[in-house]
Amino acid sequence: MNFEEQRAEKVKEIEAILKEYLPSDLQNQNVIGEAMEYSLMAGGKRLRPMLMQEVYKMYGGEGSLVEPFMAALEMIHTYSLVHDDLPAMDNDDYRRGKKTTHVVYGEDMGILAGDALLNYAFETAATAFDTYPDDLEKVGKAIALLAKKAGVYGMIGGQVVDVKETGKEIDEDTLTFIYRLKTGALIEAAMMVGAVLAGEDDDEVLRMKDIASDIGMAFQIRDDILDVTSTRETLGKPILSDEKNQKMTYVTIHGLERAKEDVKVISDRAMEKLKETGKANEFLCWLVESLVYRES
Amino acid sequence: MNFEEQRAEKVKEIEAILKEYLPSDLQNQNVIGEAMEYSLMAGGKRLRPMLMQEVYKMYGGEGSLVEPFMAALEMIHTYSLVHDDLPAMDNDDYRRGKKTTHVVYGEDMGILAGDALLNYAFETAATAFDTYPDDLEKVGKAIALLAKKAGVYGMIGGQVVDVKETGKEIDEDTLTFIYRLKTGALIEAAMMVGAVLAGEDDDEVLRMKDIASDIGMAFQIRDDILDVTSTRETLGKPILSDEKNQKMTYVTIHGLERAKEDVKVISDRAMEKLKETGKANEFLCWLVESLVYRES
Repeated sequence: MNFEEQRAEKVKEIEAILKEYLPSDLQNQNVIGEAMEYSLMAGGKRLRPMLMQEVYKMYGGEGSLVEPFMAALEMIHTYSLVHDDLPAMDNDDYRRGKKTTHVVYGEDMGILAGDALLNYAFETAATAFDTYPDDLEKVGKAIALLAKKAGVYGMIGGQVVDVKETGKEIDEDTLTFIYRLKTGALIEAAMMVGAVLAGEDDDEVLRMKDIASDIGMAFQIRDDILDVTSTRETLGKPILSDEKNQKMTYVTIHGLERAKEDVKVISDRAMEKLKETGKANEFLCWLVESLVYRES
Repeated sequence: MNFEEQRAEKVKEIEAILKEYLPSDLQNQNVIGEAMEYSLMAGGKRLRPMLMQEVYKMYGGEGSLVEPFMAALEMIHTYSLVHDDLPAMDNDDYRRGKKTTHVVYGEDMGILAGDALLNYAFETAATAFDTYPDDLEKVGKAIALLAKKAGVYGMIGGQVVDVKETGKEIDEDTLTFIYRLKTGALIEAAMMVGAVLAGEDDDEVLRMKDIASDIGMAFQIRDDILDVTSTRETLGKPILSDEKNQKMTYVTIHGLERAKEDVKVISDRAMEKLKETGKANEFLCWLVESLVYRES
């Protein structure tokens, strides 16, 4: 199997895990389960759970301890998209070529589905206390980390500044702040939680943070590039959305050429640091490289 | 001090705890901290953290272990109000006599502030892993319980059915389902988590669930009564909101007199069961009684 085929296999495995962890025995409130499944199973690269799993394995992690956390992280990522798409936020009707959750289920149910996914992420992660009673300390550390990276010091913090600065001139520092939090924090969570659950110490966890931070930055700049160079068909969502939403991006600040160069510099740096661990397998290296040259 | 004065003292203590646990060192994203504080510190009975603390003490719980969970639960309750008040939900401009969060900070920030409070609730509860390393098992159990009661099997589940059935004829079973989940679940969480953190076994935790379930039901029926008998000034929010929102309530199904009788029957039952524990102090009994005769 080449790397692309390996990736496709892994996506299938991850989606089976996600499905397994969705609520399955709801009663009158069944519609919220449908809305959660609709948004969670609507495709996507599954980058965050994939990175978490690869790092977990790279550090010798075995068994299924990582799985509830993979599901939890993807639920958090998905809820953020569901709420981001709401009329009062970016007001997007399509994502990955499919109608967004609030378009299908109504705005009220869109808000509740996002809330439900966020809450269920912690519910899912917390099942690990029962399932892995010998790993209480790791599980506790991983939940604390996940919560921090998803919250006001992480992803939500980035979204807040993003929303606040929309339509305004922003400087490079502010843009970096937004990217490191809005996009970077969950990628940091992925790689850090993978290391924590594999039993690595704080130094190694911080090493993952550093690499993840670069990956997140390169990933987001590539996103900015694709928004102006790709097509709606390839992306599965409207292009030129940043312009429409009056958002300054890495491309509007630095220009397309510089953006392309910097993606390469940052991702090469991440790759180097990853190789320095002496543990990264070829797939993980390929994955990181593919992300920054991706076409969608 | 009479009971009313004791309650006022306890509210002050709880509000000091809430303030202590709010994020205090935000940077560019500072506005989200303001919106969280605005909604969390806008008053209220602080019933859920108060019940949690009283149950914790009643079972001999000592020290501050319960405090991050008191804060977390009130954050969850508050986020649910912030999202409930949004234009796409109940569209309320006032709560407790103050403008609602989305009116003050904008609809986008209202959504994010709700998300932030929910996420921060788990972040806050998860600080206990670090602070109380000898209590990992209790902390894990309490987080799992909190998440479950707040989610699709608890509060959110109730909200979903409430939203879905608005404007429709519903039967008593559906109404009971909504009340047990939407209102009851967080009150169950309060009393159950209090018992868990005090080190009680499953039997005793379930005993608290049973009592809390009755308290929640009586509390919600009283809410329905006040919505038709009180004034805007006393309640701090518009009356007749159920009629405006086309919501059937215990009062519309059973009539005002029957509703008043049932509040008394259910709360007397809860009180009896509470006394049977042999541990309930006078303040806790008074608190439960006061809730169902409350005027706001």
